[in-house]
Amino acid sequence: MSGKHLGKQTIIMQNPPYIASGACIVGTKEGRGPLKNWFDLISNDTYFGEKSWEKAESTMLKQSFGIACDKAKIAPSDLQYIFAGDLLNQCTSSTFALRESGVPFFGLFGACSTMGEGLSLAAMTIDGGFADAVCAMTSSHFCSAERQFRLPLEYGGQRTPTAQWTVTGAGAVVLKRCGQTGPHITHVTTGRIVDAGIVDAANMGAAMAPAALETIMTHLEDTGRSSEYYDAIITGDLGLLGHNILMELFEAEGLKYPKIFTDCGVLIYDIPAQDAHAGGSGCGCSASVFAGYILHNMLEGIWNKVLFCPTGALMSPTTSMQGESIPGICHAVAIENIQEVQ
Amino acid sequence: MSGKHLGKQTIIMQNPPYIASGACIVGTKEGRGPLKNWFDLISNDTYFGEKSWEKAESTMLKQSFGIACDKAKIAPSDLQYIFAGDLLNQCTSSTFALRESGVPFFGLFGACSTMGEGLSLAAMTIDGGFADAVCAMTSSHFCSAERQFRLPLEYGGQRTPTAQWTVTGAGAVVLKRCGQTGPHITHVTTGRIVDAGIVDAANMGAAMAPAALETIMTHLEDTGRSSEYYDAIITGDLGLLGHNILMELFEAEGLKYPKIFTDCGVLIYDIPAQDAHAGGSGCGCSASVFAGYILHNMLEGIWNKVLFCPTGALMSPTTSMQGESIPGICHAVAIENIQEVQ
Repeated sequence: MSGKHLGKQTIIMQNPPYIASGACIVGTKEGRGPLKNWFDLISNDTYFGEKSWEKAESTMLKQSFGIACDKAKIAPSDLQYIFAGDLLNQCTSSTFALRESGVPFFGLFGACSTMGEGLSLAAMTIDGGFADAVCAMTSSHFCSAERQFRLPLEYGGQRTPTAQWTVTGAGAVVLKRCGQTGPHITHVTTGRIVDAGIVDAANMGAAMAPAALETIMTHLEDTGRSSEYYDAIITGDLGLLGHNILMELFEAEGLKYPKIFTDCGVLIYDIPAQDAHAGGSGCGCSASVFAGYILHNMLEGIWNKVLFCPTGALMSPTTSMQGESIPGICHAVAIENIQEVQ
Repeated sequence: MSGKHLGKQTIIMQNPPYIASGACIVGTKEGRGPLKNWFDLISNDTYFGEKSWEKAESTMLKQSFGIACDKAKIAPSDLQYIFAGDLLNQCTSSTFALRESGVPFFGLFGACSTMGEGLSLAAMTIDGGFADAVCAMTSSHFCSAERQFRLPLEYGGQRTPTAQWTVTGAGAVVLKRCGQTGPHITHVTTGRIVDAGIVDAANMGAAMAPAALETIMTHLEDTGRSSEYYDAIITGDLGLLGHNILMELFEAEGLKYPKIFTDCGVLIYDIPAQDAHAGGSGCGCSASVFAGYILHNMLEGIWNKVLFCPTGALMSPTTSMQGESIPGICHAVAIENIQEVQ
């Protein structure tokens, strides 16, 4: 086994990459939610000045990328790689957002776990000696997702109480080899696909919760850490229902709750007041919550050790129509405030 | 700049990962083509025993994975990572093929360049010290692609002469840290997105050729090599038309032709006899040609130095319907026979 591997599926960074910046842009609904103070930009135009929602999503992602580079004080052309993906068919939000970037591009598909996957690979690319600066980013848009995955918006379809609301949001994070005091990625636990047999596509939280449990348990086992080691363990977008299931699964396994145990899909909306049913979802949910609220809390020193665990449901409308269950995945990324020795 | 970086966008492996095995499965049409002797399995059942073409594609990929592990003499559970992706919406061929694998999973979207992207990241993961054994794989299926991207098969739509034929095929490649004499990945040149403004979705070769030129030129510049250094430079699936465009672009740049300069989409069919129009395409095209024919030629010592350059068109039916042009990408992977010192 290679020297950087701990236990089954965790790697430890020899030189933890530094999180140089995070940028996030969201839509109106998200901008009215409890995290509104930590987004870089809140757009009141669903179209972001474009003629379609798909183009709007791309533009939002491109703008987030620009802000992230700006905050990290790096020219896009000085990045060695970009890792990006999204939920649109053939991941076109990412590819069209980046087609003029001129940066070597690795396209990802991890559904709502994409920010976890992107941060993992970006960190590995730097720690492996292949790059000095890398960007990971992803997006989702309520309107482009709704018409691709569910129903035309004009139809006004009713939503079940278990359904989540796809976040209109994008997040971009720049990692650098040489950092300064602040948040660094120290460990990566890459998820395996877990299929618990859930077939209800309007109940993604239940489908993803078992994957979240598996990855978090494996991370704790591999690192020898207790869940209390972290100031916060924050899953991707299980939503309210999925988060409650995860808490029950935690108890059933005899695991102690972390100090703060929450979920990006729970955090992003004031669920009852905003009629968000089971909470937020979409790649842009954990991405924008991470690049905004979570990084803010780390930079302020409110949290010093966070386990960020984005989750994804790896199905499509076609697989659901063909009667398949919904496989889930969860990637865990450990982030710690480290004092850089000059 | 990190120590493994050469020039703009190429990295050199300090300890080139060994290609321990390649496995490929194809359909009837491919099994009647000129490369028939180098596929591991040719299925005469379009459905691969399943009830839908999407499930068939998944099953074909899963079987390729099994054969690749078998040939590499490794238990799937001893792999540290799998990199996989495909063309189906939300990459479900890969996720459903691997949902029982139990291996940490990174989902990719690189369209037809996926095998290049997967090999690149798999090699970096090993050379970076994160893994000892990794698998990269991808697939495509004529019938699942046709009905997703074009028309229902029952409609019998006419194809333009520039159109390519999506290969029914899957390829899986296992890389290991500790190898023996044989093919190793020595360099990776990661592509940037290149959009030449082509809007005709039935002419993907033209859309991807400029990306292929850019990546190959950058690779040669970064490594200081002439195109004649390689025994063969083989692009992904430009097809006949795209390959001819690439040859013209090569000449226009004053570049010398490599000894063998061809394309997986040209190689896989006897184009006139098999009525394959502009040749093969799809993720499974370069994947099955690589895991079969190319690896065979390297293992036999017919070729010792190959630059494998899968290309992808990063669009979707939605972007084309919205009038967008087709961005292309090409990832180059240098593979050389290396004598392992024991």
